[in-house]
Amino acid sequence: MRHLSLVGIGAGDPDQVTVQAIKALDAARVIFLITKVRETEDLVAVRREVLRRHVTGEHRVVELVDPPRGRSRDAHEGVVDDWRTRRAKQWAAAIATELGEDERGAFLVWGDPAIYDSTLGVVEQVLASGTVAFDYDVVPGISAVQDLAARHRTTLNQVGGTIRVTPGRRLAEQLADLTTEDVVVMLDAELAFADQDPDLELFWGAYLGTPDELLIHGRLGDVADEVVRVRAQARERKGWMFDTYLLRRAR
Amino acid sequence: MRHLSLVGIGAGDPDQVTVQAIKALDAARVIFLITKVRETEDLVAVRREVLRRHVTGEHRVVELVDPPRGRSRDAHEGVVDDWRTRRAKQWAAAIATELGEDERGAFLVWGDPAIYDSTLGVVEQVLASGTVAFDYDVVPGISAVQDLAARHRTTLNQVGGTIRVTPGRRLAEQLADLTTEDVVVMLDAELAFADQDPDLELFWGAYLGTPDELLIHGRLGDVADEVVRVRAQARERKGWMFDTYLLRRAR
Ligand SMILES: C[S@@+](CC[C@H](N)C(=O)[O-])C[C@H]1O[C@@H](n2cnc3c(N)ncnc32)[C@H](O)[C@@H]1O
Ligand SMILES: C[S@@+](CC[C@H](N)C(=O)[O-])C[C@H]1O[C@@H](n2cnc3c(N)ncnc32)[C@H](O)[C@@H]1O
Repeated sequence: MRHLSLVGIGAGDPDQVTVQAIKALDAARVIFLITKVRETEDLVAVRREVLRRHVTGEHRVVELVDPPRGRSRDAHEGVVDDWRTRRAKQWAAAIATELGEDERGAFLVWGDPAIYDSTLGVVEQVLASGTVAFDYDVVPGISAVQDLAARHRTTLNQVGGTIRVTPGRRLAEQLADLTTEDVVVMLDAELAFADQDPDLELFWGAYLGTPDELLIHGRLGDVADEVVRVRAQARERKGWMFDTYLLRRAR
Repeated sequence: MRHLSLVGIGAGDPDQVTVQAIKALDAARVIFLITKVRETEDLVAVRREVLRRHVTGEHRVVELVDPPRGRSRDAHEGVVDDWRTRRAKQWAAAIATELGEDERGAFLVWGDPAIYDSTLGVVEQVLASGTVAFDYDVVPGISAVQDLAARHRTTLNQVGGTIRVTPGRRLAEQLADLTTEDVVVMLDAELAFADQDPDLELFWGAYLGTPDELLIHGRLGDVADEVVRVRAQARERKGWMFDTYLLRRAR
């Protein structure tokens, strides 16, 4: 039976890969690398560096260029589903063609495969399609959420409190719930923090784990403008932006 | 200046340590190992195995036995604070005595230091006390939350949804919020899931990442009794229990 490992590789620092991940990659004869049509070279470089630095097992890298995502970049469900179906077809074909009947393969997954990542969903869809049979396992990876907390030397929860992680477009709804003390925001294209209570404490991080890492911390009302400015400049300079932030309501 | 690294080592599998963590441990001359008075040997063994398997740097291990926690095992804030103060005194003395002025040390932290862990709080308290000066950094680690998701081969969020992690005693409050789709529960001594909507989907895991790992998945109403039984038997057999679970509300 073919076997696949879906391997979390951390969210920017090639040394944030675990020994368990390295072993799974070492055992793979084929490593599938998913890239986007206009993927920034930086993000591909991190994945290649993980392999170069840590993986000694003999393997082929098979690059799969993601089908374009359709009009909307939002997680609007219809669009996501159609995209998943097209990816599932592409992956099914690649697995059947590139991987021998008893071979092991691996998919590199950014951050943790359990956190805002579609790899698991696509793999389940490939299996459900019945086109190619395989077994698979998942190897957890350090998420950008965790690196954000580590770099700011803070916890994600207050004592006895709750941890939340939410996409930008659900931030307002999450903060409206008065039991919310801490909420981490990912996938925020609209700067959802800008309209929130100025007394919230903000821990912001961009390009975490990379040489371009940016960190800003302070009272939201005091640092929001700085974040907006620094973020716009960095995006302009680098051509892309990956940021995550924690908003904390004091008890 | 003394330097400390607070190093997440994963939540059970010694191979779930990152290369970044190994490097930080390799650089440390003193590795502080916090244990509890009646700590189960298994938990200490995992930490020692991380060092044995992965750390080649020359170092001394200094074991600090936690002061007893007081009457209540709950995260009742008064109790926690007093405990922190006593730990802070103990750690300050150990850092001052065991670590030379320019030496590097490391604290091993279970799972991820940002998730329901008091190491950061105690270290900040040591610094605030002014007894001993040092610089420190934090190295993220794989949390039990992530290993739970990986072993069940599921994500922590539904598409576009929110991730929550909460202590057992706040579960009911979190589920009362109708925007909750997914909630992970840690630190649950009271089986808080038992009273919840039987149509929730349960992903339960105990002793994750260890040879004793237990996994149960199904509709809450169908598997709750089994979890209660398996959990009681395992706790009886091993003398301790560490479990985490995800409850999912279908959309
Ligand atoms: C599709 S999600 C993938 C998350 C990933 N699975 C994880 O666990 O980190 C992409 C989002 O993750 C966050 N992100 C990923 N890597 C990051 C980094 N190095 N620095 C800051 N944010 C990052 C950003 O919010 C980005 O929009
Ligand atoms: C004080 S918290 C520490 C959490 C840790 N910092 C982490 O990131 O996993 C202890 C709780 O974590 C969970 N836990 C830790 N290790 C576990 C394991 N190997 N299996 C299942 N649950 C675990 C249990 O819910 C336990 O009550």
